Amino acid sequence: MADLAAAPNTTQMANAIRALAMDAVQAANSGHPGAPMGMAEIAVALWKRHLRHNPSNPLWADRDRFVLSNGHGSMLIYALLHLSGYALSIEDLKAFRQMHSKTPGHPEVGITPGVETTTGPLGQGITNGVGLALAEKLLAKEFNRDGHAIVDHHTYVFLGDGCLMEGISHEACSLAGAWKLNKLIAIYDDNGISIDGQVAPWFVDNTAQRFEAYGWNVIGPVDGHDVDAVDAAIAAAKQSSDKPSLIIAKTTIGKGSPNRAGTAKAHGEALGGEEIKLTREAIGWAHEPFVVPAEVYADWDAKTSGAAAEQAWDERFDAYAAAHPELAAEFQRRMAGVLPENFAQTAVDAVLAAHEKAETVASRKASQLALEHFTAALPELLGGSADLTGSNLTNTKSTPALRFDGGESNGGRHINYGVREFGMAAIMNGVALHGGYIPYGGTFLTFSDYSRNAIRMAALMKQRVIHVFTHDSIGLGEDGPTHQSIEHVSSLRLIPGLDVWRPADTTETVVAWTMALANAQRPSVLALSRQNLAYAPKTAVDDIAKGGYVLAEPKKGKARAVIMATGSEVQLALAAQAQLAEAGIPVRVVSMPSTNVFDRQDAKYKSSVLPEKLPRIAVEAGVSDFWWKYRCAAVVGIDSYGESAPAPVLFKHFGFTAENVADTVKVAVGAARLKAPKKK
Amino acid sequence: MADLAAAPNTTQMANAIRALAMDAVQAANSGHPGAPMGMAEIAVALWKRHLRHNPSNPLWADRDRFVLSNGHGSMLIYALLHLSGYALSIEDLKAFRQMHSKTPGHPEVGITPGVETTTGPLGQGITNGVGLALAEKLLAKEFNRDGHAIVDHHTYVFLGDGCLMEGISHEACSLAGAWKLNKLIAIYDDNGISIDGQVAPWFVDNTAQRFEAYGWNVIGPVDGHDVDAVDAAIAAAKQSSDKPSLIIAKTTIGKGSPNRAGTAKAHGEALGGEEIKLTREAIGWAHEPFVVPAEVYADWDAKTSGAAAEQAWDERFDAYAAAHPELAAEFQRRMAGVLPENFAQTAVDAVLAAHEKAETVASRKASQLALEHFTAALPELLGGSADLTGSNLTNTKSTPALRFDGGESNGGRHINYGVREFGMAAIMNGVALHGGYIPYGGTFLTFSDYSRNAIRMAALMKQRVIHVFTHDSIGLGEDGPTHQSIEHVSSLRLIPGLDVWRPADTTETVVAWTMALANAQRPSVLALSRQNLAYAPKTAVDDIAKGGYVLAEPKKGKARAVIMATGSEVQLALAAQAQLAEAGIPVRVVSMPSTNVFDRQDAKYKSSVLPEKLPRIAVEAGVSDFWWKYRCAAVVGIDSYGESAPAPVLFKHFGFTAENVADTVKVAVGAARLKAPKKK
Repeated sequence: MADLAAAPNTTQMANAIRALAMDAVQAANSGHPGAPMGMAEIAVALWKRHLRHNPSNPLWADRDRFVLSNGHGSMLIYALLHLSGYALSIEDLKAFRQMHSKTPGHPEVGITPGVETTTGPLGQGITNGVGLALAEKLLAKEFNRDGHAIVDHHTYVFLGDGCLMEGISHEACSLAGAWKLNKLIAIYDDNGISIDGQVAPWFVDNTAQRFEAYGWNVIGPVDGHDVDAVDAAIAAAKQSSDKPSLIIAKTTIGKGSPNRAGTAKAHGEALGGEEIKLTREAIGWAHEPFVVPAEVYADWDAKTSGAAAEQAWDERFDAYAAAHPELAAEFQRRMAGVLPENFAQTAVDAVLAAHEKAETVASRKASQLALEHFTAALPELLGGSADLTGSNLTNTKSTPALRFDGGESNGGRHINYGVREFGMAAIMNGVALHGGYIPYGGTFLTFSDYSRNAIRMAALMKQRVIHVFTHDSIGLGEDGPTHQSIEHVSSLRLIPGLDVWRPADTTETVVAWTMALANAQRPSVLALSRQNLAYAPKTAVDDIAKGGYVLAEPKKGKARAVIMATGSEVQLALAAQAQLAEAGIPVRVVSMPSTNVFDRQDAKYKSSVLPEKLPRIAVEAGVSDFWWKYRCAAVVGIDSYGESAPAPVLFKHFGFTAENVADTVKVAVGAARLKAPKKK
Repeated sequence: MADLAAAPNTTQMANAIRALAMDAVQAANSGHPGAPMGMAEIAVALWKRHLRHNPSNPLWADRDRFVLSNGHGSMLIYALLHLSGYALSIEDLKAFRQMHSKTPGHPEVGITPGVETTTGPLGQGITNGVGLALAEKLLAKEFNRDGHAIVDHHTYVFLGDGCLMEGISHEACSLAGAWKLNKLIAIYDDNGISIDGQVAPWFVDNTAQRFEAYGWNVIGPVDGHDVDAVDAAIAAAKQSSDKPSLIIAKTTIGKGSPNRAGTAKAHGEALGGEEIKLTREAIGWAHEPFVVPAEVYADWDAKTSGAAAEQAWDERFDAYAAAHPELAAEFQRRMAGVLPENFAQTAVDAVLAAHEKAETVASRKASQLALEHFTAALPELLGGSADLTGSNLTNTKSTPALRFDGGESNGGRHINYGVREFGMAAIMNGVALHGGYIPYGGTFLTFSDYSRNAIRMAALMKQRVIHVFTHDSIGLGEDGPTHQSIEHVSSLRLIPGLDVWRPADTTETVVAWTMALANAQRPSVLALSRQNLAYAPKTAVDDIAKGGYVLAEPKKGKARAVIMATGSEVQLALAAQAQLAEAGIPVRVVSMPSTNVFDRQDAKYKSSVLPEKLPRIAVEAGVSDFWWKYRCAAVVGIDSYGESAPAPVLFKHFGFTAENVADTVKVAVGAARLKAPKKK
């Protein structure tokens, strides 16, 4: 509701956004003025009248979350953060889009205080928002107690046509409806313009009808330039008890610019000096660039109200802590992302148990066995699968299926995401960003293609999100080339900041899980087999965590070559080693469950595992290109698509036999001999 | 309409599908009986009463197209093809999911006669269907003349819950509505079951309402086990004059199986001998496995009716050819996918023009310049962009924007796909599969992540689809790390069967386009710069088509090293060469616009470009891992995310300066000297 006593000048508040946006974009000569100028009044309505936040503490646990899904309009959020009192100065705004500034081209979490998630790749912001709202709903159920609503906030998302056209918006919003996320409120900047022009020829969706079909509470259309109308719509949305809300706000892109407003030209380029001058005149903003009058700052300031809101929550939390001290401590631990004290011991126990049992199981099953330990010990683990639960084996005894039958969570910890890989991945990013949970989710490795950009975004945002990708090679057999991963493991390894694990057996799988959980600043991928894998006998397990280690030295003689392998091919490497031993060629077998982690080890360790002078032969049922970085003499890989047939037939067909590996080693060893004399 | 005279026994026709599906899955002990058994009556209604096809000529140009978007139900289409008379024997069905059979786990185009597209990755089949229907509509407009409707067929798609949950279904179906594809008829197998069980907790969409929101003609729900009801629904759908149709058919998954029907267990595993026996009893099918009575074959046979249908079309086509001989010849050329006779000369002219002008332009602009030539000469080029037309520069004077204002195509040749990258890519696959067009489409390279699996599917299907990916590195500047490609070029290179080009200047860009167009069996990616690139002076252009070539030998002395570079970094390599020359170190510069193509050259050529004895230094503004396959001494790359800043600042920050490249070469050359004596 409007604070009539203070009577803030909402027109000038909105114009301050317009001016800062056009000035900053002009200074950078790059950026997107259209959305900030078009959403200025919407922003006033939300940020002045509804958003519960404290600019002095952007990490307050119970703040409302705000997501700018149309992230190209970054000057909107930067202006809002600056005006309302966050640690984002006018100098920061002047440095918009410059090297190492706090105001990069698209909003980036971790760079700018108050930015909740990195947006720009369209459709993912709203999907992160679904994850944020899901986390709120689940945490509230888990931690709130009668009279103590310590988790009680909204998630607000601004989005545009682009987000609504993206397929991921379908996946995410369909789930938000199914999950009855009533505290998710999205405001659609319905300006009828995308980069290519008026959207009518390519975007004729009846968006209201579409969202009603998802079970959303649709409000509007309202006039997006009428602060009171938007205010009332948000107030109505907050009343929704069992549905997420979509407020459709009709706006004019670039509103205020006499010659650019309502055109695609307003979207993504500086207005230019002359048009900015005309705009200043048109909107009645007589101030110099980057100058905002004190009274406008005063109207925008949220530091006092924010501090009071957090103070009130602190008092409520103190009362909660007094009544439920253990819960309160647990809540704080969970929100801090700190693993429980028993984590290390749980991991050690699980590793040793796996090592002692030495079971022959598929690594997807090994993952489930590991998860039984970890989900029992870590209540923050929130699992799921994109409709392949029984194949990914992501569920455990501790993680019953999550349901929202009466609108409320049943306390379940395993999510049926449906057939929505990209949505799952970006929702997990939102859950991780919220705090309180460590999300993991499964699908077949090949369908990591669908979710790839969300995996990348987790890495860019340094979020602990764990992807369980099973059926990781031709080893899946009969489903054929559409489902058989060839390039996937290697292409995921190329994503900066992501750790990819392809464990060879139960013990390696537990270690992979341990590392994924322990890495608070990094997403991880586990690539797991459908088929059974023999346990790889080992004398010690400590070095698995280094990503690559000497699994087996030759029983007799000094190694003349190194076979390096991952996952299901490690057993092949061991079999080849045995064959070569019979032929009098001693070789070392290196298991390399994570090249990413191995590459971060020091040079001494790395050369102890892969001595410079020994020829290396890599074996992996995937593309060979990647492996040459280890200066291999040969790579046994697959550089074509798979086939539909039983797995054993396929391995043989593609040359994944101990014989072929052994033969390859023989050639490499021979070649090394042949080459040496030539050089001399 | 039902052929009452013949009175085929539709119950037994449907049961033949059930029996073949359960028997083949049982024989393979792998596969998905649920969908074929649940859609058996739907299949009878469509294939017996509506589908216009000729089993003796699966490539008849004007056949109806049929897509099984729920491709896991492959035994449905295999049974239909076998029963209706395609060259798919009962022995082929017995070899279901076995090595090199014509009946792989998921339907694959090119393997099985009558399969129009490879399906399995959910959501892409319906999207291919949109592309097939789009191609039909455009070809009809382009080639049909009064009294001569030579292009006049339907596209039928079967799909399930999974396809509808996938985000890509939103992108594709939204476009199908906008494009008024009235001859697209999709039948939704609404069985309420997905792999994880009854879909209610995770899939509550009102699908009818959703599709109405897209502008579709929604029919039903009808009883999917009532052949007449489905028949009537299809007949009604065929009457739609300006909307695609969705028929919602309520079915029971695994229908016929007493204990599995209606459960998730029916979805993806063999029923087992006992349950198959019970099912045979329940449905009254007393025949041995893989035995179908002659009268059922007779009811299913479509060879006679199909031959007659094609014969009638042949006669119509002859009349058309008599009236419009040039059009008829052009139609045949286009459908055969043969490039016009002037293609080679056009390419030569364009290459020479580019070489003579030697312009400094961004390679995205160079692409547009090339496209001006090719779109003028090749009417089959059908362009588009995912809402970045002005950035991708995919439009030309010859390709006005495609519009469907009155329901009909305006003859435009550039598609505004909206912000729908994955949808665009899979629609392009459908267009290519139909024949008659060569589709190309643009977005930013980073968003190839969104469309990645459709790019892979094009490669698996060997389809000529061309992706124009611009803004290909940190060179895009201020938009920052969310938009800056780091791992993308290399990770695309890993996709088998795909050619990735990253040209360095105007001439290389024309050659890349030429090769992409000439390769009828292969998709291509063009990775193009946002920023201007200096023309790389060259004495000859012939070797560009080999993917890698010697661009510049040292002016003085014998090369002591090779700098290999791609795209925007080639100019850097040349600058480093000049600096090194001043320092008395002669080096060769190799431009490597396509590693995929270079790798296919013979060993002699490859070693002539990259002599074994010269140390190699690769330079590319992307991840370094890939380049080690060329046994480089050093790689100048980027293995972290980018930053938001002007491009020149970024190139300097990340070490992409002539100085750094030259220094790297100096070290490599020095290292080579140091190593050599050691070996001796």
